[in-house]
Amino acid sequence: MLNTDDVEREEVTAANTEFYRAFGAGDFSAMDALWAHKSDVVCIHPGWPPVSGRANVMASWIGILSNPPEPAVQNAEECIYLMGEAAMVVCFETIGEMILTATNLFVREERVWRMVHHHAGVTEHRPRSAIQIPSGSLH
Amino acid sequence: MLNTDDVEREEVTAANTEFYRAFGAGDFSAMDALWAHKSDVVCIHPGWPPVSGRANVMASWIGILSNPPEPAVQNAEECIYLMGEAAMVVCFETIGEMILTATNLFVREERVWRMVHHHAGVTEHRPRSAIQIPSGSLH
Repeated sequence: MLNTDDVEREEVTAANTEFYRAFGAGDFSAMDALWAHKSDVVCIHPGWPPVSGRANVMASWIGILSNPPEPAVQNAEECIYLMGEAAMVVCFETIGEMILTATNLFVREERVWRMVHHHAGVTEHRPRSAIQIPSGSLH
Repeated sequence: MLNTDDVEREEVTAANTEFYRAFGAGDFSAMDALWAHKSDVVCIHPGWPPVSGRANVMASWIGILSNPPEPAVQNAEECIYLMGEAAMVVCFETIGEMILTATNLFVREERVWRMVHHHAGVTEHRPRSAIQIPSGSLH
């Protein structure tokens, strides 16, 4: 029988999976639905400054999803962190040969996990290399 | 008189400020103290894969703080997000001419806000440009 944490991990994993499905499919309606409606939201797309406020975040997704990356983004190696009413997913994203790391944050709104933050940036490290700590990096 | 949210914002801002003070000063002892001791921790340094687990995260900081960036990292334009027992700071970092964006996540451990995640990556956008949504970016 699953305990509460197991159930929450499955729920958060499902919310994260739905984010990447909507992203990859260019499904703006689903993307709009999965972001929080009551909590403040913010988004850091790769190389961008932070975009804050629901209207600005959704405007950024309209632009991105009108011409979604090809091949479609895929997520890998999700790690789930539960923090009461908030939950975080750290994972890799791949877009063809391009590899990114992502932090996705969710909060509960009326029992449903909704996204409040997405932060992604490029890396040269492939999934399954996460244990190795690179040397000579700046920061 | 400050309400609870105001007090929490001040506490989280102080924890974030202490993170950048320790980082800039190469103060590993302070850096070690401010990361969570009980909760799972993870860190995405710029361009790195996720580093997970306290021992690995601290090993990464020993490497970085043994030769900290010059000039010292500075933080700017902190935005605080309160989520019950978790709190997030999204901010800019500057290291001389280099500009980065960061997501810093904290949880309460025995009433003290401790860091559980740091994710930083480079951007070409300067602080105070955050309202402008760039066009033509991939994602």
